[in-house]
Amino acid sequence: MRVAVIGAGSWGTAVASLVSRNAPTVLWARSAEVAQEIAEEHQNRRYLAGFELPRTLGATADLERAVRGADVLVIGVPSHGFRDTVAQLAPYVRPWIPVVSLTKGLEQGSMLRMTQILGELLPGHPAGVLTGPNLAKEIMSGQAAASVIGMEDLVVAEALQRVFASGLFRVYTNHDVVGCEVGGALKNVIAIATGMAEALSVGDNTRAMVMTRGLAELTRLGLALGGELATFAGLAGLGDLLATCISPHSRNRHVGEQLGRGKTLDEVIAAMRMVAEGVKTTAVVDELARKHGVEMPIAEEMYAVLYRGRSAAEAYRGLRRRKTGHERDSG
Amino acid sequence: MRVAVIGAGSWGTAVASLVSRNAPTVLWARSAEVAQEIAEEHQNRRYLAGFELPRTLGATADLERAVRGADVLVIGVPSHGFRDTVAQLAPYVRPWIPVVSLTKGLEQGSMLRMTQILGELLPGHPAGVLTGPNLAKEIMSGQAAASVIGMEDLVVAEALQRVFASGLFRVYTNHDVVGCEVGGALKNVIAIATGMAEALSVGDNTRAMVMTRGLAELTRLGLALGGELATFAGLAGLGDLLATCISPHSRNRHVGEQLGRGKTLDEVIAAMRMVAEGVKTTAVVDELARKHGVEMPIAEEMYAVLYRGRSAAEAYRGLRRRKTGHERDSG
Repeated sequence: MRVAVIGAGSWGTAVASLVSRNAPTVLWARSAEVAQEIAEEHQNRRYLAGFELPRTLGATADLERAVRGADVLVIGVPSHGFRDTVAQLAPYVRPWIPVVSLTKGLEQGSMLRMTQILGELLPGHPAGVLTGPNLAKEIMSGQAAASVIGMEDLVVAEALQRVFASGLFRVYTNHDVVGCEVGGALKNVIAIATGMAEALSVGDNTRAMVMTRGLAELTRLGLALGGELATFAGLAGLGDLLATCISPHSRNRHVGEQLGRGKTLDEVIAAMRMVAEGVKTTAVVDELARKHGVEMPIAEEMYAVLYRGRSAAEAYRGLRRRKTGHERDSG
Repeated sequence: MRVAVIGAGSWGTAVASLVSRNAPTVLWARSAEVAQEIAEEHQNRRYLAGFELPRTLGATADLERAVRGADVLVIGVPSHGFRDTVAQLAPYVRPWIPVVSLTKGLEQGSMLRMTQILGELLPGHPAGVLTGPNLAKEIMSGQAAASVIGMEDLVVAEALQRVFASGLFRVYTNHDVVGCEVGGALKNVIAIATGMAEALSVGDNTRAMVMTRGLAELTRLGLALGGELATFAGLAGLGDLLATCISPHSRNRHVGEQLGRGKTLDEVIAAMRMVAEGVKTTAVVDELARKHGVEMPIAEEMYAVLYRGRSAAEAYRGLRRRKTGHERDSG
């Protein structure tokens, strides 16, 4: 079983490193220099500086070469490049093989999930997502983590479980692809909000409240999109939300922190070399919430901060002005 | 509407301070010195050192005096003293008045929730619980927080909402008393586990995994006891779990950290002046899980560490050895 991982960002590289212990694996990098560095020096200095990659992990910048021999295709490029990359590699994909997305975002404009894009461009291939509370650097350091493969066909999911899992990387399965993808994408919006909370020093009670009510609104939209309740309470929803919100290494939390300190979005983005999916996801979520008539007070305030010039402090005041009723209501 | 708060620990004192802004409030302290300090110096140095209490907050060590005039009775004593205290004050309680527990624990031996004890000793009184992610010191510092009143009778709950709520202290209602109480008690077991994770430096992925799978097993037992799913995902379940697990001020997390550093339970308890409910709750939960046939791998490991001499590192290794299947299963 040969595996190709497309995209040599920090998470793509970490997943490729994990998988290379179980199966022959090649990692595709957009840049020839990065591919060479991975293949020859067993390093990816740009995204995972300081970590030695497995010597068995191959790398190439040639998309056809990466994809043509693969029995499992794993896509780990940012959401804004997902469609183009998949369109480019589609001609080389062997029939029937499963395709797994690592990307936690939604497509701007179309509002599609990544497996929906896979369904359009690679019809007939079992499409799934690997998601959960997975900070790349911790996994590279050999710390334990759990993940979930979201895939409708559980027989394929169980076969993939064996491709991805290792002693310290626990992989569960879940048939609810929609829930798994929506959870991974939407938690980034809440991570931005907790980053702001951090910068505003509002305390652990408030941070816990934002995460809890954030999960509640993420779940409301997720259910409207066809996800299942249990998924949002699991690794792909709550688990990922927690890791992202409590870790100082989270990029989306970092964006919130910087905005909370009074920086503008342009300044924050200009200073980052990696993509914070949550910024774009917030815009898509705002549109989805209106389309489905779902109240999402936290996402609404984040949208106002990111795109309408509201300050972080005003956003928190806005949240506090809402009425409190029964917990199941949306206040 | 006059309110009596029974128990001048940190949370009882904080709640009495909040309520005293909305209604005439008297706080009962077991010790006459503490009562005098609160009434005359507006301080509670033992449990809330450095905070000035409202000048309108009365205090007494005379149980009859505290209780006899109260239209709302609030009980904030630790679970091991709950039954005795309620039995002592029962003769003085005015008819019909609602009684609200602040205590997040289960009675050892009987395995009862605090409102069940209220039902036995004060039958006919609407019994409820105020619970949620509420760190006393943050609330005393004027930081925002949210809480929930769990009470079957929502008309009474809404009246109590007005007694407890203030600008920065948001109070929701929930009819699911069982879920609210079980969530508050069981999260302390998971907090001990995350404290150990902290001491073992296992990383944010693992901490997120422990909280997520911890919430899953807490929910399984809570459902078996008659609680509702939505409650465990809300402020009384997830919310409280989060605040307790992320705050360095949590006593139960502190117990886990000390155990993780190799101290014995006796050493840890001897060094603490406050009660960590989770230690006793873990023993009750172990019994309840067996009685109801619910798998609770984390609670089981915590029981082994607290009562059977297993080391924290062994407990984490034990958790990693479990099989991974579909996420909805108990592994």
